Amino acid sequence: MQNIVERLLNGDRRALARMVTLIENEAPQARRYLAELHQHAGHAHIVGVTGAPGAGKSTLVTRLVRELRKRERKVGVVAVDPTSPFTGGALLGDRIRMMELAGDPNVFIRSMASRGSLGGLAASTRDVVRAMDAAGYNPIIIETVGTGQAEVEVMRAAQTVLVVIAPGMGDDIQAIKAGILEIADIFVVSKADKPGADQTVAELAMTLSLDPNRRKLAWRIPILKTSALKDQGVGQLADAIEQHRQSLVETGMLEHRAQRQVRNELQVLVMHAVMNALKAEVSEEEWDTLIADIAKRDRDPYSVASELQTRIGLKE
Amino acid sequence: MQNIVERLLNGDRRALARMVTLIENEAPQARRYLAELHQHAGHAHIVGVTGAPGAGKSTLVTRLVRELRKRERKVGVVAVDPTSPFTGGALLGDRIRMMELAGDPNVFIRSMASRGSLGGLAASTRDVVRAMDAAGYNPIIIETVGTGQAEVEVMRAAQTVLVVIAPGMGDDIQAIKAGILEIADIFVVSKADKPGADQTVAELAMTLSLDPNRRKLAWRIPILKTSALKDQGVGQLADAIEQHRQSLVETGMLEHRAQRQVRNELQVLVMHAVMNALKAEVSEEEWDTLIADIAKRDRDPYSVASELQTRIGLKE
Repeated sequence: MQNIVERLLNGDRRALARMVTLIENEAPQARRYLAELHQHAGHAHIVGVTGAPGAGKSTLVTRLVRELRKRERKVGVVAVDPTSPFTGGALLGDRIRMMELAGDPNVFIRSMASRGSLGGLAASTRDVVRAMDAAGYNPIIIETVGTGQAEVEVMRAAQTVLVVIAPGMGDDIQAIKAGILEIADIFVVSKADKPGADQTVAELAMTLSLDPNRRKLAWRIPILKTSALKDQGVGQLADAIEQHRQSLVETGMLEHRAQRQVRNELQVLVMHAVMNALKAEVSEEEWDTLIADIAKRDRDPYSVASELQTRIGLKE
Repeated sequence: MQNIVERLLNGDRRALARMVTLIENEAPQARRYLAELHQHAGHAHIVGVTGAPGAGKSTLVTRLVRELRKRERKVGVVAVDPTSPFTGGALLGDRIRMMELAGDPNVFIRSMASRGSLGGLAASTRDVVRAMDAAGYNPIIIETVGTGQAEVEVMRAAQTVLVVIAPGMGDDIQAIKAGILEIADIFVVSKADKPGADQTVAELAMTLSLDPNRRKLAWRIPILKTSALKDQGVGQLADAIEQHRQSLVETGMLEHRAQRQVRNELQVLVMHAVMNALKAEVSEEEWDTLIADIAKRDRDPYSVASELQTRIGLKE
């Protein structure tokens, strides 16, 4: 009877599925397993796919997975829906379309939705990618819905980021400029059979040409057109993704990004431990009393925070 | 010679300006001053104004401040630009237009841009609002640019949130649905003299009617039209803001929101202390070594995080 880590490393899909569930549930043993898996990970190319709702991400990912299967890659997909921190949050819409891939033993697909904190979802995504990586999946595609800060957080785990834009969503280029455009490594204009595709390409090219930071980079961001209807462009996209990875390796950026990610992960792990320490130290009733006292202005938040810090053992 | 806290409480604008600078610079004494100010704050109505770039927020805020001055209110404005975590970030565009208000001793305007972390900006905004509140400004308007997660974070400090949409930005309604729409208490369709204003109102009304969560609320979200060109609608807007505050008080939501904010603030303060403890405990050289070891897979992030937790004194 092998343990879950050994079975996962031997390519057992059920062990991987179980591990993902443990990660999602933040099970205490998950962290111990992941510590073991870490040394076996680091081989996969992590590809992020993001863009506004309706841009055609799910269809594109489905086609891309099919193309990568032709190239005999073992492909992992994590579909992440950060939704809103304010509502509960629905699952990703057209996940069903990806079901056609689910019968392939060399494709592993998993959807993840936001249960709690934003940071929690980004951390869980990274852990799931680590597990898939150790299980031999390469590349691993992280797909998100939307273009907000949440998606940017999740995309930190990716080495190559695809931003997908549909023709006629020109206004969105302006809207998404602030966050997502800046993390793009490859632009994909989807639904290229539709009128307006060339105009969207031109607008993107203009936006890129105006960005002074871009000109300094070794990687010249391509703007690719794909059409699911005409079954076009996905081969070139797979090539571009591979070229981007090559460029990252050659320029040393792959290592640089990995180190930045590790730094971020360490901070997140420590913060998570702090939240747990607070939960263990302060009962819900006491939280309510402390909060009411501050709201009534009997106490101030700064001295209460100091007191909490002392109680969880934190050095001054 | 009075200290800065006393001078601020006596309405000294220079003391308030100095306090805001101390907050922005995260000066160590700021926290002590803010602890003293906390008991004097809590009187101001905090109004958030957000919306996509180009929606006309700055113009609207300028007009709103003028209207509130007619009503003899002492008005504070914090203009926040979260920009991107990836680029340095420019300051808010048409801040100059608000200069016309700057000569009025009963108007206090301050711009804040993101220097470091997202959470840091939201925390600084809350502290600046606290200082203005203690100095007797009421209402205090927080204006943000954009519609991302950063803006949602900043808007947590507001009691009444205005979402501004210009006619013809209909596509944006879809785009901003995920985060900002859900925190709106009042919709403002700006530039109502333009064609398409009524259509935008209709689209918003439809979006609202489709939201099952909305129907449960005591407050029926109004959709107001304003025109800076025709100088229309700002009086009604000021009335609606006042009515929303009344509704918050009557339903107990004001207290509920205040308590939720306090809980969030306590967590942020503790997290900030953890970051400082890590900085004090681990030198930059050691960080680099730890990170390189993890990236090379000689160590795993989970055990390194555990070690760091122990070193900053954190209980298991």
